[in-house]
Formats: sequence, structure tokens, C-alpha cells
Amino acid sequence: MSEHHATPSGTPDVTNQLAEWIVGLNGADIPAEVRQEGLRTFVNWVGCAVGGARHETVDCALRALMPFSGGKTATILGRPERIDTLHAALINGITSHVLDYDDTHLKTIIHPAGPVASALLALAEARPVSGEDFLTALIIGVEVECRIGNSVYPHHYDRGWHITGTAGVFGAAAAVGKMIGLNVQQMRWALGLAASQSAGLREMFGTMTKSFHPGRSAQNGLTAALLAEAGFDSSERALEAPRGFATVMSDKQDWSEILDGLGTHWEAALNSYKPFACGIVIHPTIDGCQQVRAEIGDRVTEIEKVHLTTHPLVLELTGKRTPSTGLEGKFSVFHSAACALLRGDGAPTAFTDEIVNLPEITNLRDRIDATADPDCHEASVTIDITFRDGSTLRKHVERAIGSRDVPLSNEQLNTKFLDQASLVIGQASAQALLDLSWTTAKLDDVADVTRLSAAGQDAAK
Amino acid sequence: MSEHHATPSGTPDVTNQLAEWIVGLNGADIPAEVRQEGLRTFVNWVGCAVGGARHETVDCALRALMPFSGGKTATILGRPERIDTLHAALINGITSHVLDYDDTHLKTIIHPAGPVASALLALAEARPVSGEDFLTALIIGVEVECRIGNSVYPHHYDRGWHITGTAGVFGAAAAVGKMIGLNVQQMRWALGLAASQSAGLREMFGTMTKSFHPGRSAQNGLTAALLAEAGFDSSERALEAPRGFATVMSDKQDWSEILDGLGTHWEAALNSYKPFACGIVIHPTIDGCQQVRAEIGDRVTEIEKVHLTTHPLVLELTGKRTPSTGLEGKFSVFHSAACALLRGDGAPTAFTDEIVNLPEITNLRDRIDATADPDCHEASVTIDITFRDGSTLRKHVERAIGSRDVPLSNEQLNTKFLDQASLVIGQASAQALLDLSWTTAKLDDVADVTRLSAAGQDAAK
Repeated sequence: MSEHHATPSGTPDVTNQLAEWIVGLNGADIPAEVRQEGLRTFVNWVGCAVGGARHETVDCALRALMPFSGGKTATILGRPERIDTLHAALINGITSHVLDYDDTHLKTIIHPAGPVASALLALAEARPVSGEDFLTALIIGVEVECRIGNSVYPHHYDRGWHITGTAGVFGAAAAVGKMIGLNVQQMRWALGLAASQSAGLREMFGTMTKSFHPGRSAQNGLTAALLAEAGFDSSERALEAPRGFATVMSDKQDWSEILDGLGTHWEAALNSYKPFACGIVIHPTIDGCQQVRAEIGDRVTEIEKVHLTTHPLVLELTGKRTPSTGLEGKFSVFHSAACALLRGDGAPTAFTDEIVNLPEITNLRDRIDATADPDCHEASVTIDITFRDGSTLRKHVERAIGSRDVPLSNEQLNTKFLDQASLVIGQASAQALLDLSWTTAKLDDVADVTRLSAAGQDAAK
Repeated sequence: MSEHHATPSGTPDVTNQLAEWIVGLNGADIPAEVRQEGLRTFVNWVGCAVGGARHETVDCALRALMPFSGGKTATILGRPERIDTLHAALINGITSHVLDYDDTHLKTIIHPAGPVASALLALAEARPVSGEDFLTALIIGVEVECRIGNSVYPHHYDRGWHITGTAGVFGAAAAVGKMIGLNVQQMRWALGLAASQSAGLREMFGTMTKSFHPGRSAQNGLTAALLAEAGFDSSERALEAPRGFATVMSDKQDWSEILDGLGTHWEAALNSYKPFACGIVIHPTIDGCQQVRAEIGDRVTEIEKVHLTTHPLVLELTGKRTPSTGLEGKFSVFHSAACALLRGDGAPTAFTDEIVNLPEITNLRDRIDATADPDCHEASVTIDITFRDGSTLRKHVERAIGSRDVPLSNEQLNTKFLDQASLVIGQASAQALLDLSWTTAKLDDVADVTRLSAAGQDAAK
């Protein structure tokens, strides 16, 4: 552990050191590979935000809040409506998470981009910023929330906190604070105001309120930075004080996770992107089935039966035999395998009510079974296929696509982006938005991306 | 403990039963004395909200957030600006708490009116409601937050949560939900959305963020009710689930505090009102010194020295010998005693920079000393006065004004209201607002009170 300034009680001045690092960091000092991962994080997030834009959760939130919205200063990605800055942070945070298809910091299960990008992009329309400065702020926000998450994980998560919300608010505050140029004292206040808004219960999983968490943490972190900028003060020891965030909300407080290697070790470089729009435990199966399909082509129609050998969690979490809705399909490894074999699909299109009830799919689904193997790695699966002619095929996936060992390539990110965004804003608009998103670092005004995300919405209607 | 429906695990369905009670309650079934206490709660809150309206904390918050505010649909009590409904809930919650002069539920130290009244009144300008229905909703909100507070107090507070924020958000959601007519399912969702926004750390005490808590809980509870109304769902077991509010945020969960005696026992009837604008431990001393002043009149100028015998906490928390600012004056029992003897004042006017440095006051202040007596009750004090001619006077306060045994009379509430509101909106406007506030139950539109609170602001300039 590196040497830290410490308070009299022996606890380092964590909030202050973190604030100093955030404020002092020069974007040019972020290594190129970290900046590249930041760009991938942003491109993936834009696709998810557009992809989720028409979900009923978003419709509900807008129905409730639009009457109370202020100036139409900000874009809701993938939708025709405009809304005020603070609500845009909320809504875009909801849309980007609502399909369970966003990014994952695997060490903490934080979905980092939602709270941070939603807050930054909403404000960027009111206060223009270059793509380069935007990406610097985004990377800092992701770094801060993941480090704070690390300092309390897993105890904090085990207690019942939805860590994307509770840690995400710090990421949003830090990112916005960096983007608007807070000084160190204001940054400490922003982190303090974030700490006093840190919330979100895992009890909400399975309801719309789960997606509310990244949205609200984006909005709260943005508010924290704006208040701090205006001189609204808070505790300057919000992370480490005896009644601060880490002690009140977790049994574990590891300050070294926050302070060690700042600027040399980057959690933001470890972000990962879901290849499939469902729980991560099914991903090896979908990956393997897609590989089988790629290898055998039309012979998928000759499959007699399929046997999966999986990690036990797969059946525990996604063992639904006869799903009847799209949402239930996400909790059925059998549907997911059938859909991947017959259609090669693991995108949101694989989890619609229509697809889940398609006779072609349900027919194969009912001929798939599975065995839990405690020795099977979480990112592995073995798929045994028997064809009508009696021949067999075995496909073993050692590590699934999207795991830390097999990250999505840029091409795979592109496919993921287009598959979901095209459904919402049309194929041509989705392609244009994707192309522009990859050029973010060169944009004079990052809001060009935001505006283009909405402009295409008519094309899809 | 009464009979409750229970979940299979033995935990009663707390959220559901509470929601059923809130939705089913007829305002006419609330006992007259409870309704009267609800009216007193409201009158006291209006005075505090107006009284705190010009505090720099409020200026800061408005400087940050006004540029992002929406339609000017709501009044900020005591100020000329108008703001959108959701931000009005936030700002009025801040103003009403910022002088530490609001109401107190003594069992939990919750300041009940801030989160609830701020949310209700902000929405009442957008959706008109009668004074009677408003008071019903207010009383329900106070009841809900205090009962939920009781269920986790003191463990929850001891862990570091600012209970006015964490429990207040439920009060605001319940109150607004009642006012807008949510059904039982929507009310369960509103309570769930409240649970996932429950936040606020005691670490923030001594900073502006402390006042932010009642404001944000008002805004969050209001948002929760509006979302639930639009069909935005959440867990329906947010209070009692293993990963719900009470277990995640407290080591104690006493469901009987929430469920027992609903509609017959009223926590809302136990609200109390601070007679003086400072920490409650100094209140017996100010009370006693005011009584002495009333008895001896001009002889206060002949006082040679004063000796206080107090509860030990008094010197621990408010033992500042030579305060130099108004804020420091709140932490000096010596200043408070001198000011009460010489000017009869314990209102915010007693805690200005000017008064704290007035030679007449500091001169007497320096001739006051105090002894801590472990046998002295928290609400007691003994004041021994020696005059220049050698004569002495002893004043013993058995229970201070404002304690549960000696509640403020309506006349004392009036004085408190006028003393602070006159400084902000002028005496005539303050009197008119006070008179109107007492007639709330008879108003066709409760927003008449809100509008009048702003109308007078020019008079004070």
C-alpha cells in the first residue's frame, strides 16, 4: 500500500486525496489503451441507451415526469421528446440499463457507464464540451465509481445495496465535476453530496425500479456537482468518516482500493460489454450455440436433441422450462439455446414475446436439457448435440465471449449496437450514429452524438 | 401485538398493510385532537419555511438549480422566485430546516413536517386540493415516517443515518400518494420507490447538506408517488423484505411499531415545536432566563453574576465561552442565557453575528458560569442569580417549554411564527399569513397559503 496522508485516527484522508487526483488529472496523461476502452464504453452505452429507449419502463417514467420537466434542453437518446437536463440524466440512465444489456465491471458487477455517461451527456447539451474532454470525464467517473465499489465490495452488495446506484452516484459527481472544472474543495463537496444521496436496494430487482437506480444516480451525481459548483458545502470526509459512506453502508472499508495506483492502475480499462441481452450466466451457452450454428449451417434443422453441461448457477437462475413472455425467456437457458441455434440471436430481438412463443423455437427448446456440473467454470459450457441421423457433435466453450478473457471486439460491439439501435431509430440512422460515436474523441461538441441519436427516430416509424 | 397477515417466513406483509391503511383511511376518521396537532404542525412549518427563506444555503441551492428548473409552477415560501414543482419540494424542505427551528418527533428526533409538507404544498399548486384533504395527507405522511422511524430507531440512527431524510422520504411518498389518490398497489410501489431513494448521512451535520436531506426526501417522495401513479412498479415488500429498507439500513426491525394501533394510536399527535432557534439542550436555560426577565423586569441590568446548574450534555455540546458568530452563538449556553436575560430573545434574531458581539451581551455573558450535574434532567435547569446589591434569586425549571410535558401553546407558536417570518416578509404580511394558515382546514385551495407567503416579500425590503 502506498504512503497516504492520514487523519489523527489513522484513517487516510480518502475523500481529499481522491478529489485532488480527479481535479489534477490531465486527460493527456491517461494511457492510450485506457482512453480506447473509454471510447468503447461510450459506444456500447450509446447503443444500449438507444436500444432501450422505447421500453415501457421509459414510457412510464416520462408519463409521470414530463409534466414537471423544465426547458427542453436535452435529448432523450432514441426518442423524439426533449426534456430538461436533470431529467435527461435520469431517463437516459434508465434506457441504457433497462434491457440488462449494458457494460459490466466484473469485479463488482457495477454497470459503470449508465450513471456517468447519462449525467455527462445531459449536461453537455447545456454546456458544450469537446469529445476529448468528455471522454476524460467519462473515464474518471468510471474509475471513481469502480474504485469506490471495490473498497466496499462484496460486503456492501451482500447487505442488499444495488451497487450500480450506490457507487454510481460518486462516478457521476466526479465526472461532471471534472467536466465543469470544480476545484478540489468543490470536488470534496460534490463527493459528499453524492454520499448523502447514495441509495438503491437489490430488493427492486425484477421491477422497473432496478433501472431507476442508474438513472437516479446519474441525476443525483449531476445535482451534487452543480450544487458544489455554487458553493453548497458538505462534509469533506464523506467516504472515510466514521459516519461516512463506507462505514455506514458496508462492513468492509478498504481504502487502498480507492487510493493505490491512482493514474497508473486503471479499473476503467477492465470494463466489459454484454454480448447478449440476458443474465451473464447464460452467455457461454448462447456463445457455444452460435458457434455451432456457424459451423453446421442449415443442419441446425436436423438437430434431434441437445444436452448442456453447465455451472450450477445456470439452472438455479435461468432454469425456466416453458417461458411464455420475452422477459421469462431471459430466464430460460433452454429458450436461449434454441434461439441461438435456430436464429443465431442473443440480442434483445431474441427475447420478445413473439419469438419466445414461435413454434419452431419452442419445438427445439423442449428437446434441450441440461445438467449442473459443480466443476464447470461460470464462463464455460459443454454442448452435446445429437442429430436425427444419430451423429453427434460436441462444442466446449472454455471462456465465453464477453468474459474478461474474451472481450468483445470492436466489430462485435458494432453488431450489438446496430442490432438493438436499428429497431428503435432505423438501420441507416443507427449506422450513422455508430460511425459518429467512434469519432467522439475528435468532436468539437460531443452533443453532436446526442442530437444525432434523436434525429433518426422518425426513420424507424 | 395485534394479529397480522404474515408472509410464509413469518414476517408480516408490512408494506402492504401500511399501504392498505393509508389508502383506506377517511380523513373524517382522524380524531379532532390529531387533526388539531396536524394544523399546529403545518402552521409551525410555514413559519419556519418563511423564516429560513433567505439563508445562504437556500441562495446557493437556487444559484445551482434555477438554471435547470422547469415551469414556474410553484412558490418558494418567503421568496420572490417561482420554480417547478419538484424543485419547490426540495427548496422548501431546505428552508424549513435550515435554522434548526422546525418540529421534532422526540422519540426518533425526526423533523416530520419538512419532507411531508414541502412535497404536498409544492404539488398542491399544480393540482389544487382543499385544506382539509391537504391536512389529512399531511397527518398521514407524518404518521408514516414516524412509525417507520420508530421501527428502526435507535439502531438506524446510531449507524449514521440522518433519519429525517431516510424516514422522511416514506412520509412524503405516503402523503402525496394519499393526496393524489393512489390505489393500494400504486401505494406499495410508491413506498418501494421511496425505499430505493432513502438516503442522508449524519456525517453532513454542520454543513449545508444537512438541510438538503429533508428537501431531497420531499422531492424524492413526491417523485416516488408520481411515478407509481403512472404505473412505474417496484418491489411490493420494500419495508420488510430481507433486502428491504429495514434490514439493509438497520440492525433493528420492529414491525409492531409500524402496524400496531394504526388509526387508534397517533404518533402524529406527539409532534413538538422548538421554542428557540438552537440545539434543544439549551432550551431549559433560555426558558428559565426568560421567566426571570419576566419577573424582575429592569433589574436584569443589575445582575452581577449568574450560575447555571445543567445536564452534562449542555456543556459538552454548547459550552462555547466566547462565540464570535451567530452560528457559534447557537453553541454557547452563556450567550443564550445572556441574550434571554437582557432581550428575552431565543428566536433566530438572538443568533445573528451582530447580537453575539453586542458589548451589552458579551459583558453579561462573561459573568455567567455553569456546572454540569449528572442528576439534572435534560429538560431541567437551575439558575442562580446574584445582584449587585448582594441579593440573590433562584429559578428552577422542572421541564422546559417545548418538551413533551410543556408543549408550546398556540399563542407561543404565533409569537415564534411572527418573530421569524416578519424578518423575511415584513410584519403585516407575516400576520396575514399566520392568520390564513390557522384557517387551512376551511380553505377550498390550500395553495392560497403558499401564494400569500410569497406575495408579501416586497414589504420586507
